Amino acid sequence: MKILIAIDSMKGSMTSIESNQIIKDVFENNKTSVANFAIADGGEGTVEAFAQNLHVEIVSVDCHDLKGDKISASYSWIPDQKLAVIESSATSGIQFLDNTEQTHPRMTNSYGLGEQILTAVNHGADKIIIGLGGTGTVDAGLGMMSALGVRFYDDNYSELDPIPKNLGSISKLDSSGIDNNLKNVEFILAADVKSPITGTTGAVYMFGKQKGITDLELSEYEKDMEKFSKLLLNSEESQPGDGAAGGLGMALRVMLNADIEPGLILLAKYTHLEEQIEQSDLIITGEGKMDNQSLQGKVPVSIAAYAKKHGVPVIAFVGSFQGDREQFRQSGINAIVPIVKDISTLEEAIKNVKSNLRNAAQMTFDLLNI
Amino acid sequence: MKILIAIDSMKGSMTSIESNQIIKDVFENNKTSVANFAIADGGEGTVEAFAQNLHVEIVSVDCHDLKGDKISASYSWIPDQKLAVIESSATSGIQFLDNTEQTHPRMTNSYGLGEQILTAVNHGADKIIIGLGGTGTVDAGLGMMSALGVRFYDDNYSELDPIPKNLGSISKLDSSGIDNNLKNVEFILAADVKSPITGTTGAVYMFGKQKGITDLELSEYEKDMEKFSKLLLNSEESQPGDGAAGGLGMALRVMLNADIEPGLILLAKYTHLEEQIEQSDLIITGEGKMDNQSLQGKVPVSIAAYAKKHGVPVIAFVGSFQGDREQFRQSGINAIVPIVKDISTLEEAIKNVKSNLRNAAQMTFDLLNI
Repeated sequence: MKILIAIDSMKGSMTSIESNQIIKDVFENNKTSVANFAIADGGEGTVEAFAQNLHVEIVSVDCHDLKGDKISASYSWIPDQKLAVIESSATSGIQFLDNTEQTHPRMTNSYGLGEQILTAVNHGADKIIIGLGGTGTVDAGLGMMSALGVRFYDDNYSELDPIPKNLGSISKLDSSGIDNNLKNVEFILAADVKSPITGTTGAVYMFGKQKGITDLELSEYEKDMEKFSKLLLNSEESQPGDGAAGGLGMALRVMLNADIEPGLILLAKYTHLEEQIEQSDLIITGEGKMDNQSLQGKVPVSIAAYAKKHGVPVIAFVGSFQGDREQFRQSGINAIVPIVKDISTLEEAIKNVKSNLRNAAQMTFDLLNI
Repeated sequence: MKILIAIDSMKGSMTSIESNQIIKDVFENNKTSVANFAIADGGEGTVEAFAQNLHVEIVSVDCHDLKGDKISASYSWIPDQKLAVIESSATSGIQFLDNTEQTHPRMTNSYGLGEQILTAVNHGADKIIIGLGGTGTVDAGLGMMSALGVRFYDDNYSELDPIPKNLGSISKLDSSGIDNNLKNVEFILAADVKSPITGTTGAVYMFGKQKGITDLELSEYEKDMEKFSKLLLNSEESQPGDGAAGGLGMALRVMLNADIEPGLILLAKYTHLEEQIEQSDLIITGEGKMDNQSLQGKVPVSIAAYAKKHGVPVIAFVGSFQGDREQFRQSGINAIVPIVKDISTLEEAIKNVKSNLRNAAQMTFDLLNI
């Protein structure tokens, strides 16, 4: 019996890698071959997921975080494909926000991502996947572009610092400084966000508040973003995904000709997930909250689609389930196993999530062995 | 595949028969033969459990409840064994208590049980099983004995009413009025209680408070019970079980030569539970709260003991589980399935117990079918 375990991260409780390992520890015995497949959506954990699934090393880079402090960030390097996988959140992530003026979106940028790109290119990358989830910046890629050699000027041809404070003052940009080597590299963005750069579903209105833009600041920030995006897009229409990662989607697309794809699809493609599923006898997946929204292509249902195609049964572990059981059956999920095992509050359930998952896995193993 | 379902009642939520039926409804399909086995411990549900397991009718009897009101009570009649099964709780049960003086233990008695015994004997019973659980009386069997023809007198040879108000005044009893036919009937008491008649684990101190004896009344009640039990036991030692059902254990043992056995063991014996288990491919059992106490012979562990002997796997559905998983595995329980499926309070869990059990059964069915 060959089992493939691919559980999504449970927000605020467990990473995909941690969940997978718990199940693997319970299931692993002589009669069973258990493989883990780490899930990532382009946010935190993307680099690690590629590294684990493709059995490659993670490389460390000296660079700068969103407020300019020196940090060490890492990327996955897949030698045989000359592929580097970077997370924008490693340098520009919400984890760096501290509610001070210094980390307000007007003052921070994605410079570190540009440094990571240059390092990967110097490493010899032919292809670079950039995960766009989990950023704390709304800089329309100013920092990243600046690191690559782009310069920004105001009406008086004075050079401006690449921070969003200046977003509305930029009237000219000079990209002649971009290294020609970058033109030969293929860039692919991993993002589940389909937002345009501006508007109610854009980088400012949709995601700005969780990054520290106050209600009072929104409309002026949006106006500045509109002005800058017109300059950068040069009368082209904004595309879905331009608003991802505070506008990094737009900047990477325009400057580096990057394509964008949903995180899991990209991960699946580069790590041969479908072949792994096809060669398995049982798939174990899961997510924190499974409901009818999950049917719109969240991790377990996406995995189940591959499994159904190849006739492989699927078990989903869930923190909670509210939905139409029959629709999930149709989507290829044979059994839904709740993790909660006793009367508990949400806090207790989160606190005990690992031991609860271990118990649920043991119960499942026991039932499968009857 | 032959499945036998035998779940204990979940106190305050579901009877054994209801739980079994929920599982049966989920599991029943063409490929599966599902049989239900109703569980009872001598308390409420014992009559129905025998009737369901042996596919016999329930007979109704006009008699009196613990405060003397006319009611209709029922017993199971198993024709081929000339066996009647009676519950003392049907006439003397805690469900009749209403916190008034009228239902205080000093004023109530087990007269109705005596009426039921006589009806069964008149029906032609060779054997009578009497379930002792769930009574609200502490009458040392005065009422039951009175119905059978026993008379009680004080020091002045004045006859006393058979109620515990008079328990300390009785100095003589006359059992010559008992019908001789009763001597040819075998009486078996179904009780899990091993209490002696008096002392800290006896009928008064151990069970009196939940039946309405106040703290202030306990010591005098106990003194009266000591006096009466000396009279009835006639210098013999009290036996384990004498304190069951407010002293009915003692009265039935002394007056009718009754034997006592744990409820489930008795039920198992008369309904051929072990043979049914031996002929099954899977046993489904369960209880409300499974913990290390459950290892001391509660329903699922008792059932698992039979199953283990015959190599039949066992699944237990539980409201909650706190215990050493390995010890339960050793006892023959292959898988423990929690019923709770989501964050919830105790009240919500009780309210949703049926739908939760249905979900847990569906999940189990799904996993067994993988």
